[in-house]
Amino acid sequence: MLDIAALEKLVHELSRLPGIGPKTAQRLAYHILRAPQEYSVRLGEALERVRAEVHTCPSCYNYTDSDICRYCKDPHRADESICVVEEPSDIMRIESSGAFRGRYHVLHGTISPLEGIGPQDLRIQELIQKVNAGLAGDRPQVREIILALDADLEGDTTVLYLAKALQNKNLRLSRIAHGVPIGGDIEYVDERTMSRALENRVEV
Amino acid sequence: MLDIAALEKLVHELSRLPGIGPKTAQRLAYHILRAPQEYSVRLGEALERVRAEVHTCPSCYNYTDSDICRYCKDPHRADESICVVEEPSDIMRIESSGAFRGRYHVLHGTISPLEGIGPQDLRIQELIQKVNAGLAGDRPQVREIILALDADLEGDTTVLYLAKALQNKNLRLSRIAHGVPIGGDIEYVDERTMSRALENRVEV
Repeated sequence: MLDIAALEKLVHELSRLPGIGPKTAQRLAYHILRAPQEYSVRLGEALERVRAEVHTCPSCYNYTDSDICRYCKDPHRADESICVVEEPSDIMRIESSGAFRGRYHVLHGTISPLEGIGPQDLRIQELIQKVNAGLAGDRPQVREIILALDADLEGDTTVLYLAKALQNKNLRLSRIAHGVPIGGDIEYVDERTMSRALENRVEV
Repeated sequence: MLDIAALEKLVHELSRLPGIGPKTAQRLAYHILRAPQEYSVRLGEALERVRAEVHTCPSCYNYTDSDICRYCKDPHRADESICVVEEPSDIMRIESSGAFRGRYHVLHGTISPLEGIGPQDLRIQELIQKVNAGLAGDRPQVREIILALDADLEGDTTVLYLAKALQNKNLRLSRIAHGVPIGGDIEYVDERTMSRALENRVEV
């Protein structure tokens, strides 16, 4: 349709990004063509730099450009408490709340039999090893694990799996509360959220 | 906020694309990190290839990867009729309507005093030269110019300017009909509306 192979390829690659359909990809490609060439060069360099510099932290599997990530490096954070998240981007949300000052562990996904993602595809074994190393005295003992996973089928499956894998390890295993958002209007809350909010009601 | 310079730079560059805010840019950057590295390599290559291969046609200023674009090359199109568009992407819309079989001329923008874009910043002089060359017998004579510009302030200003610049050149100057929604963008008009707009073009 565009009849220019190079442009078609760029549209094709852009349309593989999440939320970018073929029309938007086309608009973006034309914008890139229209913009000064330096923009396209800078975007290419940014992609290259991310490839070269960003990797996962060998301890918690968050993204970092150092040998170890800032949360694993920070001496003021509690070693005994680990917050388990699905993706590195979830850490930012939790950090901005200021309500957690322990360490993190990124699974890089959740168990999804439908998509063929099993426990072995995630950083679950590494989490268990961290807990075992603490019990063996090889590193600070983990006393609490907070699971900050989505409240969907995959999140629930992963919570169940971890609860079983981490039982009898002498630690407190909890899951973040799911309920009506603060400032949200009860009128617009969906049934499942309301159901969970009622289930997990707290004494006042 | 992201604390990884390379990632911040990628988010910054992505957020300069139209319709991509900082939040979306962050989501795209994380997607690129998560995806197999080959994707990022391919996207970088696509950007490079577009830079290397795509340029404007020296005759009509449409984008092309050849010495001359497909519409200028096509011997079956009428030389005497030129359709003037704002951007190369507008050509596709007109082509898909099938209602025009002449040549194109891309202005690469419209006159916008507010944005400091004057006639000298657009391919207007080249259009006038094309008409004059036809009158001088140096190339086929242009007998009709159809202005397919947006129906906004900038489009109207450009039409007025062209009407003045092209008067007494022995040609029919028309503008596509206002089947195009006022304030709408030519890039998103459906084929039937575009076909009607070409049919009902009016003298200016």
